[in-house]
Amino acid sequence: MSEYNSTGSVGIVEPQKMHFAEPLPLRCGRSLANYELMYETYGQLNAEGTNAILICHALSGNHHAAGLHHADDKKPGWWDACIGPGKAIDTNHFFIISMNNLGGCHGSTGPSSINPETNEHYGPEFPVMAVRDWVKSQYRLVVALGVNRLAAVIGGSLGGMQALRWSIDYPDFVQRIAVIASAPKLTAQNIAFNEVARQAIISDPAFHEGRYYQHKTYPSKGLMLARMLGHITYLSDDAMRDKFGRDLRVGKLNFNFDVDFQVESYLRYQGENFSSKFDANTYLLMTKALDYFDPAADHDGDLARCLAQAKSKFLVVSFSTDWRFSPERSREIVDALLAAKKEVSYAEIDAPQGHDAFLFPIAPYVQALRGFLQPEVKTELPNRADLQLIRDWIPSGASVLDLGCGQGELLQSIRDKSKLSIGMEIDTDKLVNGVAHGLNLVDQDLNHGLTSLADGSFDMVLMTQALQAVDRPDLMLKEMVRVGKEAIVTFPNFGHWTTRFYLGFRGRMPMSKALPHAWYNTPNIHLCTFNDFEDLCAQSGVRIIKRLVVNDQHQSTALINLMPNLLGEIAIYHLCQA
Amino acid sequence: MSEYNSTGSVGIVEPQKMHFAEPLPLRCGRSLANYELMYETYGQLNAEGTNAILICHALSGNHHAAGLHHADDKKPGWWDACIGPGKAIDTNHFFIISMNNLGGCHGSTGPSSINPETNEHYGPEFPVMAVRDWVKSQYRLVVALGVNRLAAVIGGSLGGMQALRWSIDYPDFVQRIAVIASAPKLTAQNIAFNEVARQAIISDPAFHEGRYYQHKTYPSKGLMLARMLGHITYLSDDAMRDKFGRDLRVGKLNFNFDVDFQVESYLRYQGENFSSKFDANTYLLMTKALDYFDPAADHDGDLARCLAQAKSKFLVVSFSTDWRFSPERSREIVDALLAAKKEVSYAEIDAPQGHDAFLFPIAPYVQALRGFLQPEVKTELPNRADLQLIRDWIPSGASVLDLGCGQGELLQSIRDKSKLSIGMEIDTDKLVNGVAHGLNLVDQDLNHGLTSLADGSFDMVLMTQALQAVDRPDLMLKEMVRVGKEAIVTFPNFGHWTTRFYLGFRGRMPMSKALPHAWYNTPNIHLCTFNDFEDLCAQSGVRIIKRLVVNDQHQSTALINLMPNLLGEIAIYHLCQA
Repeated sequence: MSEYNSTGSVGIVEPQKMHFAEPLPLRCGRSLANYELMYETYGQLNAEGTNAILICHALSGNHHAAGLHHADDKKPGWWDACIGPGKAIDTNHFFIISMNNLGGCHGSTGPSSINPETNEHYGPEFPVMAVRDWVKSQYRLVVALGVNRLAAVIGGSLGGMQALRWSIDYPDFVQRIAVIASAPKLTAQNIAFNEVARQAIISDPAFHEGRYYQHKTYPSKGLMLARMLGHITYLSDDAMRDKFGRDLRVGKLNFNFDVDFQVESYLRYQGENFSSKFDANTYLLMTKALDYFDPAADHDGDLARCLAQAKSKFLVVSFSTDWRFSPERSREIVDALLAAKKEVSYAEIDAPQGHDAFLFPIAPYVQALRGFLQPEVKTELPNRADLQLIRDWIPSGASVLDLGCGQGELLQSIRDKSKLSIGMEIDTDKLVNGVAHGLNLVDQDLNHGLTSLADGSFDMVLMTQALQAVDRPDLMLKEMVRVGKEAIVTFPNFGHWTTRFYLGFRGRMPMSKALPHAWYNTPNIHLCTFNDFEDLCAQSGVRIIKRLVVNDQHQSTALINLMPNLLGEIAIYHLCQA
Repeated sequence: MSEYNSTGSVGIVEPQKMHFAEPLPLRCGRSLANYELMYETYGQLNAEGTNAILICHALSGNHHAAGLHHADDKKPGWWDACIGPGKAIDTNHFFIISMNNLGGCHGSTGPSSINPETNEHYGPEFPVMAVRDWVKSQYRLVVALGVNRLAAVIGGSLGGMQALRWSIDYPDFVQRIAVIASAPKLTAQNIAFNEVARQAIISDPAFHEGRYYQHKTYPSKGLMLARMLGHITYLSDDAMRDKFGRDLRVGKLNFNFDVDFQVESYLRYQGENFSSKFDANTYLLMTKALDYFDPAADHDGDLARCLAQAKSKFLVVSFSTDWRFSPERSREIVDALLAAKKEVSYAEIDAPQGHDAFLFPIAPYVQALRGFLQPEVKTELPNRADLQLIRDWIPSGASVLDLGCGQGELLQSIRDKSKLSIGMEIDTDKLVNGVAHGLNLVDQDLNHGLTSLADGSFDMVLMTQALQAVDRPDLMLKEMVRVGKEAIVTFPNFGHWTTRFYLGFRGRMPMSKALPHAWYNTPNIHLCTFNDFEDLCAQSGVRIIKRLVVNDQHQSTALINLMPNLLGEIAIYHLCQA
């Protein structure tokens, strides 16, 4: 975490506890007769009860997300980097609620609590919790706090699973959902790591089948091993190399099984430290909640169908070096949301910290989060002739996909006309900028194709001035008319007379206002003439509905229309499958 | 492993044991007064004692690499897929030696052996072994077996480290070295995983500081955990998904901490099974040998300097989904070998199995291994005019790097002239084919640049008909004259009259014999005219020593030389830094 900075701090906060007497029916078939939840709040709830944001914590987290517990407190809450006045999750605008989940060990009812029925610690009798159980208990808490509708639910890792579950179970209650460094379900590898951690705890002789409270023992070795292992998987290989490399602890090898390397010393310290503060039964329970989470399982494994009921706007974020919850896992969520025709933005953030990255205030990530929560929606349309032309060709109420959309000028100009509009862009800065203007932009390398999108997913697929920059324009073109009922594409004409003159008489690769790059560094790697393009359409089963050929001012003239392949600089094609 | 097939089997083999009475001084400062090594051999040693191959085993391996121990044996040796008559490591040609390393638990002296000085098990008194200690003991064994020079040393993972060490410690004794799925040293993440495994064993109460033999206990839980963890890291995320997915063991969730998923059941079984067969002290010792291996440490961390003494020819192999010993780690070895001007081939094999892949008979991997061990060196030169032209421009005794070399026709045609020749190629099939002809070919995506190569590494850098297909020809050109004292580049002329005619009069993107692809699927993404190229040279500080412009028959005529930019189809440029 970045060093603590009191500027933007929520200051000293006091945890609260709320008692619930209404039984909570659970996924496992059992129920909790009554329970307590420990929570903190930051900022003020507005009169309408609509500016609240719920923060969901991860495996080892708790309710203390921001601020300090007392003036001498050295360590702020776990997400202080992002929560506070003026920060990404801005307490000047929002009322933030952060709670310790049921089954936890930081004040909410859990295995280490006294079971009122037996007057003993719950221990192994505490029910195994599912993510949906937590969400239900969270709903009760926020309602009790006077919230009428959540402005957002936000969570990283296991917290992201809770956020996703909120969108399914309480679709009308949440305006925005941010799912960070998470997954729609664990992979076999994830489960395997959790199982090793559980076995380490359970096989510790001090565990006593979870009744170590009564035995006055504690499976500290087992929990230490579990945490050491967890810690490795939260960091990236690179992050560990940068932090420790092969540095020795005492400058030479021991030739025994003591600590030789700094990384060993660090891991043991982290493991021991955690083990002294955390309840082993809670650790077991949290890992099972992770393993069990799989909302699509109730819908024959079809996540899109499962998410069809959601009504929130989504932001999904992943981190490049996170191998415990890799970008591919986040993309599964995004693909399902696109298939379910939801409003979704997705940013894959380049960050060296591995899974831990979600706790760091990494600039584009924080900007995306801030922009998503408080977008500045522009009402003024950009004054560009080409955008106006394309806008005119899009029917009102259409769903639109814009490929290579930049920061989304075109999407902005058709915002009032389109039912649902999604942009795809690979440049993170542009993407974040678009998100901050309230657009739905998805991080996508178009050279990987649109295979995750079903046929006819959108009414209209757009691509302006980018077809010539993809690896395979022919495949891209086919994808556009497959995914879109119709498509609009624009590109520069390599057959323009200036181009021909350049090559024909000067013997040089052409450059012009439309083609400003040199041959060796141009992004335009597959240029063509209008005639070439029209041949490709014919070969590829693509019908040209309409064509507009213009000059570099985006004007069409009679002369241009007489000899478009010679005199036109840019063409706008309206296409569909033949 | 693929199913056992008796065709190509070495049949029934009997392990042998050899006693060594000469003390073995060890890296840790101690020595072993006397010791035994368990080994197997397959095939026949030739009269000269020069056809032997030593197989080095990995962490949990042993001497039993091939064949069966008796007629009813269900499971052949661990590398039976690759060792046998007609197999990649061919017992019809070679005499194969495979041994259990010192410190092991399969017959060679190790912690579970009786210490003759105390008449007790060695246990924790057994010295911590370093890879160099093993290599020394292996050397004594192979010499005792009558070997005068090893045809090859081959190893995967920890075995690869032994192979690398052989090239450093016994440079004149080994003709070929194959380093598979290995690394020049462990990363912090690798060490961290090993440390968790060790802590699992050491913190098992049955461990008794390694004296469990005397206590009649066994740290089976600890070793089980260590193996479960190891097993996860040997597989890829994808391999585990394909193998187990989220399949449940009994069709429904238990809502307790028993086995829910198949992957958990499998891991527990693997862990328990291994734990019943392997010695915990040996496991500790093997992981420390892994952690300590870092041959460059004796040379200020400079691996190239460390490898300068090597005289063998090298093959390095890595697997795409191996994240425990990733391709990047293998590339570090390759880069150091290139910097040390050694003969090296490198293949990155596309395989889903993760680190375990090195045990599987994956076609291109096996072909590379076979070709490396028994190359068919062609003596006949390819009959191609362009190769002859380039050959004439290369001075005798030059070191040559050929970029985008295909299967190495050009390298073959200059084999007799060049001191050291290395090719770089991204297509695995072509690469493997070249290796099988005795060439040194390195798997390389040229779009990632040549940053690992120092200035002036080669006398001559070649690139034929590929400059126009890289992402940034300008950067490539600079790299060529940086890495090479001189460079030769050939490419097609986009200024040829047929090209100009095509575009100028037909209004189409040109196609010709030299440019046979359509605009949308051509690999030639940065075409230029000769004049464009010469401008770039001038801008980039590249001096043109010589230029030859030819037609598509690679002939030069007076007419072409009068108007090369209009009439030349292909140019061959001889370049250097200005």
